[in-house]
Parts: sequence; C-alpha cells; structure tokens
Amino acid sequence: MEINGVFIEDTFAEAFPIWVSRVLITAATERLAKIAATEATGFGCSVIMCPAEAGIEKYVSPEETPDGRPGYIVEICHPKKSELEHQLLERLGQCVLTAPTTAVFDAMGEDADEQLKVGFKLKFFGDGYEKKDKVGERTVYKIPIMGGEFIVENKLGVKKGVAGGNFFIMADSNMTALTAAEAAIDAINTVEKTITPFPGGIVASGSKVGYTNPKYKFMVATTNHKMCPTLKGVVEDSEVPEDVNGVYEIVIDGVDEEAIKEATKAGILAATTVKGVKKITAGNYGGKLGKFQIKLRELFE
Amino acid sequence: MEINGVFIEDTFAEAFPIWVSRVLITAATERLAKIAATEATGFGCSVIMCPAEAGIEKYVSPEETPDGRPGYIVEICHPKKSELEHQLLERLGQCVLTAPTTAVFDAMGEDADEQLKVGFKLKFFGDGYEKKDKVGERTVYKIPIMGGEFIVENKLGVKKGVAGGNFFIMADSNMTALTAAEAAIDAINTVEKTITPFPGGIVASGSKVGYTNPKYKFMVATTNHKMCPTLKGVVEDSEVPEDVNGVYEIVIDGVDEEAIKEATKAGILAATTVKGVKKITAGNYGGKLGKFQIKLRELFE
Amino acid sequence: MEINGVFIEDTFAEAFPIWVSRVLITAATERLAKIAATEATGFGCSVIMCPAEAGIEKYVSPEETPDGRPGYIVEICHPKKSELEHQLLERLGQCVLTAPTTAVFDAMGEDADEQLKVGFKLKFFGDGYEKKDKVGERTVYKIPIMGGEFIVENKLGVKKGVAGGNFFIMADSNMTALTAAEAAIDAINTVEKTITPFPGGIVASGSKVGYTNPKYKFMVATTNHKMCPTLKGVVEDSEVPEDVNGVYEIVIDGVDEEAIKEATKAGILAATTVKGVKKITAGNYGGKLGKFQIKLRELFE
Amino acid sequence: MEINGVFIEDTFAEAFPIWVSRVLITAATERLAKIAATEATGFGCSVIMCPAEAGIEKYVSPEETPDGRPGYIVEICHPKKSELEHQLLERLGQCVLTAPTTAVFDAMGEDADEQLKVGFKLKFFGDGYEKKDKVGERTVYKIPIMGGEFIVENKLGVKKGVAGGNFFIMADSNMTALTAAEAAIDAINTVEKTITPFPGGIVASGSKVGYTNPKYKFMVATTNHKMCPTLKGVVEDSEVPEDVNGVYEIVIDGVDEEAIKEATKAGILAATTVKGVKKITAGNYGGKLGKFQIKLRELFE
Repeated sequence: MEINGVFIEDTFAEAFPIWVSRVLITAATERLAKIAATEATGFGCSVIMCPAEAGIEKYVSPEETPDGRPGYIVEICHPKKSELEHQLLERLGQCVLTAPTTAVFDAMGEDADEQLKVGFKLKFFGDGYEKKDKVGERTVYKIPIMGGEFIVENKLGVKKGVAGGNFFIMADSNMTALTAAEAAIDAINTVEKTITPFPGGIVASGSKVGYTNPKYKFMVATTNHKMCPTLKGVVEDSEVPEDVNGVYEIVIDGVDEEAIKEATKAGILAATTVKGVKKITAGNYGGKLGKFQIKLRELFE
Repeated sequence: MEINGVFIEDTFAEAFPIWVSRVLITAATERLAKIAATEATGFGCSVIMCPAEAGIEKYVSPEETPDGRPGYIVEICHPKKSELEHQLLERLGQCVLTAPTTAVFDAMGEDADEQLKVGFKLKFFGDGYEKKDKVGERTVYKIPIMGGEFIVENKLGVKKGVAGGNFFIMADSNMTALTAAEAAIDAINTVEKTITPFPGGIVASGSKVGYTNPKYKFMVATTNHKMCPTLKGVVEDSEVPEDVNGVYEIVIDGVDEEAIKEATKAGILAATTVKGVKKITAGNYGGKLGKFQIKLRELFE
Repeated sequence: MEINGVFIEDTFAEAFPIWVSRVLITAATERLAKIAATEATGFGCSVIMCPAEAGIEKYVSPEETPDGRPGYIVEICHPKKSELEHQLLERLGQCVLTAPTTAVFDAMGEDADEQLKVGFKLKFFGDGYEKKDKVGERTVYKIPIMGGEFIVENKLGVKKGVAGGNFFIMADSNMTALTAAEAAIDAINTVEKTITPFPGGIVASGSKVGYTNPKYKFMVATTNHKMCPTLKGVVEDSEVPEDVNGVYEIVIDGVDEEAIKEATKAGILAATTVKGVKKITAGNYGGKLGKFQIKLRELFE
Repeated sequence: MEINGVFIEDTFAEAFPIWVSRVLITAATERLAKIAATEATGFGCSVIMCPAEAGIEKYVSPEETPDGRPGYIVEICHPKKSELEHQLLERLGQCVLTAPTTAVFDAMGEDADEQLKVGFKLKFFGDGYEKKDKVGERTVYKIPIMGGEFIVENKLGVKKGVAGGNFFIMADSNMTALTAAEAAIDAINTVEKTITPFPGGIVASGSKVGYTNPKYKFMVATTNHKMCPTLKGVVEDSEVPEDVNGVYEIVIDGVDEEAIKEATKAGILAATTVKGVKKITAGNYGGKLGKFQIKLRELFE
C-alpha cells in the first residue's frame, strides 16, 4: 500500500492500557494557560524513567470553557491509578496552582471510569480560607492565593486508556524525516483525546527491550540498533532501507483506542505530504505484550 | 527607600544551599534546542512536591557552543547530590536523548565542586555501538539513535549553589503585579547562572510553613494568608497594603549567591518600571533557617 | 446592562465597507505556514497609513486543507478593489512565494463577489517553467523555485466586507485593560471570517478625526484626548470614568456583518472575565459616516 | 575550500548601498515589544515589491535600554532617504504607536550619517497634549494615548548602509537545506547591526534579472531557473549539483559592510553544522552592479 507515494508497511502498532486523566487548565489569557499547561506536562515522556506520561491535548476557546476563559486540555497518564493520583496532586498543585490566574476543571466528562478527589485534596492548601462553590454545574473550591483565587474542580475523572500508539517515519534525509514528524504532530494536535508525550511530540531515539551487547546485561532497554541510520552498514540486522537516512517515531497516548487510531491516521497522512518520505512502519512486540493492535493499513481501507 | 517611585521594604530574602547542575543542550536549530530544554526542565518548580527544581537559564548562540550549534543552558537542582544525579540521568535520558538532533555538554566549567559521570552512564543506552570521542577538548560519547547520533559529555559538573532567592511584587491591580513580574523575569533571563523555576518564572501562590486552621494539622504548608489580596479585610494579620490588589513572587535559584543578588537586583529594577507597582518585599524566616540573606536595600546602595 | 458585572454602554460601533480577500497559506508545517502568514500580514493595521489592513484569521489543520498540509487563513483588505489586487500580488509574491514550502489557495469560496486572477499573474515569475495543474478541483500553477515548487491558485475570490468593527475596554489599571484586551483577542481568534488587524489585535492609541489644537490644523487625525486616562483631570470633555486608568480598543475587519457581530460578542464576553474591567463601549461617528451599526447591547439580548 | 566538510565556492556576494535606520522599540515586557517590532517590520522583504526592507535585529535586555524596559532593535531600510522617512513615520506611527506600552528610541547612535525628525513629526498626533521631556540624555515626546503615554525620541539617526548581502545553501534534501538555513539565521540573529529581511530570514525563491522566455518580455525579474532543483534535468544551464535537492538563500542587510561580513561568516559556519549540506555559494552580477563584494573564502582565511 502507498499513501501519497509513500510505502505503508503491513504491520501494526502494539499499545498498552494506562490510566489517563484529562484536565482543562484555563487562565486569563491563552498564553498564561499555555505556560501552566507546559510546566505541568513537562518531564513526562515515558514512564520508563519519567514520573508520568503527559502532554497538551488541545486548545479550548473561551466560548467552550466553564469559566469563559481560554484554556488547554492536558492529559496525564500512569499505569497505576494510585500513582496517577499522586501525579495529579503534584503536577496540578505545584505547576498550575502556582501559575498566574489559572483554574482547573475536569475534561474527562462522561468518558470517566472513576472520579479522583483531586480538588478536594488540594483545597486543604487554603488553610480553611477556601470556599466551596459552583461554576455552572460543577462543584469547585476557590483557594485564596497571592494572585487572587485558584479554582479547582472537586473531582477529576480518570479512565483506563491507551498508551504507546506509534508509527515510524523513514525518509531520504534526517531533516526530511524530522519535518515529516513535525507535520504529523501538527495533524495529531487537532485530534481530540490524544497526546504525543515526547519532546515536541517526536521521538528521536527508539529503544529495544534489553541489550545485545553481553557486557551490558544490566540494561533493561537499549537503542534500537536496527533502526539507526548510522548503523546501516554496521549491523547485520539493520531494518533501515538503503535510501533512508533519518527515522523518527511518533508515540501517541489517549483516552481510547478509537482516538489513537484517528491520530495515527491523521499523523501518517500528514507525514506523507513531505517530499522525500519513503516508508511508514510501526513498532510492536509480535502482539505478545500489548492489548491493542493498531494495524496501519486498515486505517486507510 | 524608593526605586522609580516604588517602596523597597527593609527586609531580606532567605535562601538555602542546593546542589546545582548547569548543562548546555544544543541542537540543529534554536527552536529544537528549546523544545528539549523545555521538556527537560518541566515539572520542576519546587522540591516540596516536584522531583527537582529546574529551568532554562539562557540561550547560547552557535558562535559560543562547543559544536557550533545553538543551545540553551539549563539548571537542574536538588538538595541531595545523589538525587540530582538521578534527575540528570532521567531528565537528560528521557527528555533530551529522545529529542531531535540534541547534544549535551557541561556548562558548569570551573565553578564545579564535583563531576558526575552522567554521560558515562547514559552511554550504555548505545548497547556497545556508542563511540568515545572528542568535541574540542571535551570527552563525549556518540550514541547511535534513529535521528542520527546523540552526543553527551562524559562528566557534568555540579556545585553547591543557592535556592530560594526571592522577592515579592505588590501592585494596584492583579494584572499590574503580573505584568511587573513578567518584566522582572525578562530582566533575570539575561542574568547568567540563575533560573526562575516556577511556571513562566512567576509564583502566584505563596505558602507558609504549617497551618493556622486547627483542623488542617496534617498540612506541612498552606497558603500564605497574610499575602492574599482577597483576604485583606478577612484576616487580622494581613500584610497586603490598602492600595494593593495583586501580589506575585519571583523565586530564583542559581550557581552562587552573587548570581542570585544580581538577578534579584535586575528583577526588582525591571518590576518598578511598570506603573502601578506599589511595593517590593521579600520572604524570610527571620534568618533562622536559611544560610543566605539577600538584603533588598543593599542591592541598590 | 451588565455582563459579568461589567457595564455595557448603550451605544454602537460604526463600521465601513471594505474589499476583503481571504486566502489560505499552507506549508510543510504549521510553524512554516505561520512565518509566511505573519510576514504577509505585517504593516497592515489601518489603511490610514498602512498599504492594507491585514491579519491572520485562523489556523487550519492538515485534515481540512486542499493539500493536506497545515495552514493559516489570512485576510487582506483595502477600500479599493484595484489596490487590493496590488496588495495581493505584492504580499503573496514577496512574502509567501519567497517563504519556505508554501502554497496559496482561495479561502473565500462561495462568499466571493468577484474573482481576481492573482495566481495567473504570479505565474509569470516562472519564466515559462511553471505548470498549470489541479489540486483537487482547484486550478493552480506550480512555479519552480529554489525550495521546490510554489503552488498558487489561479483565482482568488474577493468580497465587499466590513472594516472598523470595534469596542473599547476600560479598566481599573492599564494592565487590567490590556489583559482583558488579550482575552478578547483570544476569543475572537476562533471566530471565523474576522481579523483584528492591529498589533497583537489591540489598539493602544485611539484617534479622532481632525484636531482641537488650532496650531495643528494640518493634521487629519489626532489622539482621541477624551479617551486618554492621563488627561482625565486635564481636559474638560474627558470620557474616562473616575475609576478607569487604562483603555484599549479592539478593531475588527471581516467578511460580513454577521461575522463582525459574532466576534464583537465573543470579544466582549471574554474581556469581562478579567477582574477589574469596568466598562465596555464602542466608537462611532453618530451614525453619519458608516454603513454598518453594531449595537453592543443587542448582541446580548 | 571546505568548512566542516562543506564546499565553499570561490565567489562573492554582491551588495548595494541602502539607507538604513536602526530603532529601539521598548515595551512593558519582552513579549509586548516583540509584537510591535514584528508588525512594524512585516511586509518588508525586498524593495522590489515591498515598501521597505525591514527586520528585527536583536533583543535588548532591560539593563541596556534607556527606559529600563526590554526591547527589540529593528532596522528599516530604503534606497531613498526621503522614502525611508515616510516608512519610519508610517511604520512607527501605525504599528508601534498603536501597540500596547511601547516607546521608540534611536539605536543608530554615533553610526548615523544624518538625523531624521521622526519623533518631532509624530508628536503632532498628540494634538498639543504631548510633552517634550528627557529620558536620560535623550530628548523625547510623550504623547497621551488610551494605553497611557507613547514615548518617542525626537530624532532618529539614519546611515548609508548595505543591502543584499547573501549566500546560498545547497543540500541533499530540501528539508536539510531549510534546516541549515534556519541554523544560519539563528547564528546571524546574534550578529549586531544586521537583519535578514525575508520571511523567517530565509529566501525560498531566487530571482534573476529579466526573463528567458520570449513571451514574458514584460517581466523585470523571474525565477532563477539555474538554481531550481526541480529543473535540474530540464534546463541546460542548471547550476544545481547532482546530489543537491534543495537550495535556500539568506539575504542580509545591515549598517555597514563589516557587519554584513560578520553575519555572512556566522551564518555559513552554522549552516555547515547540519549534516547533508553540500555546498555554499553566493549571488552576484559579475561585480558590475553592486558597490560591495563579500568574498566567501576570504571570510575564513
């Protein structure tokens, strides 16, 4: 199969369950909301070594938010629900409550499997000066701070979602692959209920489980040498085609499998508009580990 | 004392020792360097609930970097040296190694108290395909990744620095105080060897040690009710002047006390250029807890 | 009438006919499209002294563009149709054709009153090496350039639209008014078919027709002294309320009156969410000059 | 000659005299200064079809400006001094005076050949309510506006400078060439007294004088077909090497020849750090037209 002249490999992305929260951060202006959302979702690429997987999902205009102010929806994810609650308390408590003019609302809505009392727990910061109130139908706490009041919704919904949706972009040069990856991210940024948690949404360094070098037995993950262009002529099992000199991966987390599929499709379509892209493939473990299989070609049938 | 017509309180900021790393992240373009630096320093406001205090110190032009590419110097800080090493391994390994086209170099140079073998430890990700090499006089490892090679310096210098430098901006309206805080951050951004780790550099919610509400005995820190404009007429011990309706704090970490002082001075000067700012003060614990005392008025004598 | 506690004056904005073009600029990535769109719409605040009124209307995701790439819709406006064609040729020819990876498509669609042969005229730059082609149903020219091919649609639709929609935000401090103006712009940015042509969408200096100072008879427009906070106690006819210290105006151009109304409403609503805003009013000439009257209170009935 | 493995052609850039102004725009915050500077320098690529050549030169920190606020230095250029004055009046009067919290100061200083009374002429907008005053040693006018006061220096220095400094980057893929061009711009952005007036600093479409197609005799300039990668196998006189698929040009204007040389050198050095760049060359007319010849190889000797 080819899309815009780019070969789509007959393979699938293997993805895993993860607990997902979906939170709306509003502020006096779009810019202020983005500052808070960026800080709150930083250091959040992969739970392998980051305390959570996190990213900005999308901008929400003032017309669509509970308080009539601009905002960003962020998703924060963790395999364990209890750890996700910690992450919410820490990231919202340290990176949003402290940020100018912000408020926090649930954005999971009816998708939620469970409700975590995040606002209820953050309210104690108010030392008794906080007030329980309503914003529309939502129960919130208003906590006095130096910059006015921090408003946070009582409960935030969480859900068993999907982590590790992915595809790989292979291109004639490293910069072609990178530009195509950026185009993919631009497309995915308008797909609801998904995030791309890596820096700028893009993964420059793929990893494999374990090691091949017997001296490195202590490593649980090492570079995916088969996908490194500089090792094309060096390793025997290279999977980098002759005409490919750059490879980037897009990793997608999201609220449900449908959202991951839609994001994967939109991302691949956009990537193929960049001239010089040669091949799209995906990462999996033979279907042994992950619960979800996103078959690339089925997305376009 | 008045600066540009703004009252400077006769007080001091109380600051604490902290272990500081100072790392240069370069990339193919300034924009790509910033993406990596932002992700690596996110979720890094205060070690009270964040895993580190972290921020972007400054931009470095291609002419001034070891590899002739644009970059950003970041600082990552932790009270414990061993935890700082973990943070460096995690933040550089997950948020920079994975980011497109990046390289990592030591920027602490001769200021360092000790050297941590961060590059040496990250190199094992290369699964034996990494190469030891030189960039100028620096020993680096080149690790093959999908996006080419990730280059990381063998050792990164760390130093006992200073955390918690601070000052407060009080103004006629909340938005005046916030704009003045932004002006302060703009000024501090060009002061070397300092960062302002909170979102956008600005703290909207001051905290006090402990609680006053007897029902909240389990809280180790709560809102600094004395500094909340909305509690002016509510609490008896309010320290918010009658004509003040917005208060923001700037928190500064840095390599040494001199840098903190220079940043504090530059920040206060810039804040006072915004019309409507009424008063500058600072936070301390009566000099009982912190090793460093930055006296505001002495900065201008 | 009050909205969110802010007084809405019983007045109207007076607006004028203007020729409007609506053009989609796509590029390999959102960032590259924005660079071109920003350059093409610069120096475009008011036709009083700028060669056109111009601005970015909105972002369009790859899923919604003719070439599957991200883009921005811009509007470029001029009272004379022939001058608008010149402006299109100059701005698209100098600021978009020269910008990396761009393409230009009509975005006026069925709203158009007339078609201008802008692409047809730009194609001559191709020196005969250009090709006539199709993108979907659209007739385009592909012009060889150093960075590949510049693609431009044969004809661009123009329409008699509306210029000079406006409202004024008055607040307790200058920075409150400015922040409210930014919130208004954030809201208007998601209203289709409108732009706010001034810097950042905001006007800091209102003007009146003519002069009051008899020595300045040569001036056709001077500062609107009645609206200057610093002249509150100086001029007898000040219209700045006692509790107001900052005033900003939002000026809106657009494809039709309905769009201007929708933008005005969204902007006012957002502005009133910023605490300290006191009053919203609008600018008119008693209804003598402009064809359109946008009555503020009717928007909320 | 090779730099970082990239062939530097033995040729020169041919540049021309132009009248240059160098103006500092300050504002309450860096962000507000940038908004004004961007609008004021838009639609300013080439005087072939733009009303001026204009760009942002550099950021200036609050510590270094006359009013202690952050700012940007912009350069606005025109071959005719009288037209440059018009452009200054229009661009500063429409795009900076109208922008929130701005002030305008001369940044040409002792480099100036002449002084233009730009501030003096803009002051009449004040309708007699303006005040003559001093900021440090500088004579300024303070003009009341809705957002407070617009401050503008009485006279702005202009100088006979240099336009059309240039070099071309040729690379294996279009996106490699573009990324290298971005790296070049990052480097030039820290070279004082120069601007790169095209969108994002980069030129995607080179032009030649006149035409080759006899049907296009009415054209004074057409695409430089010799430098178009898509015409490599089509035209006989192609100058695009076999292994090159993307070409971008950097055009540099500046205060004097030394600044242009320094920028050219810094830009080329940065461009060669991007892997896949094959060749650097420059544009000239055989030395017949331009007064200045910037020889590429001499920059590195």
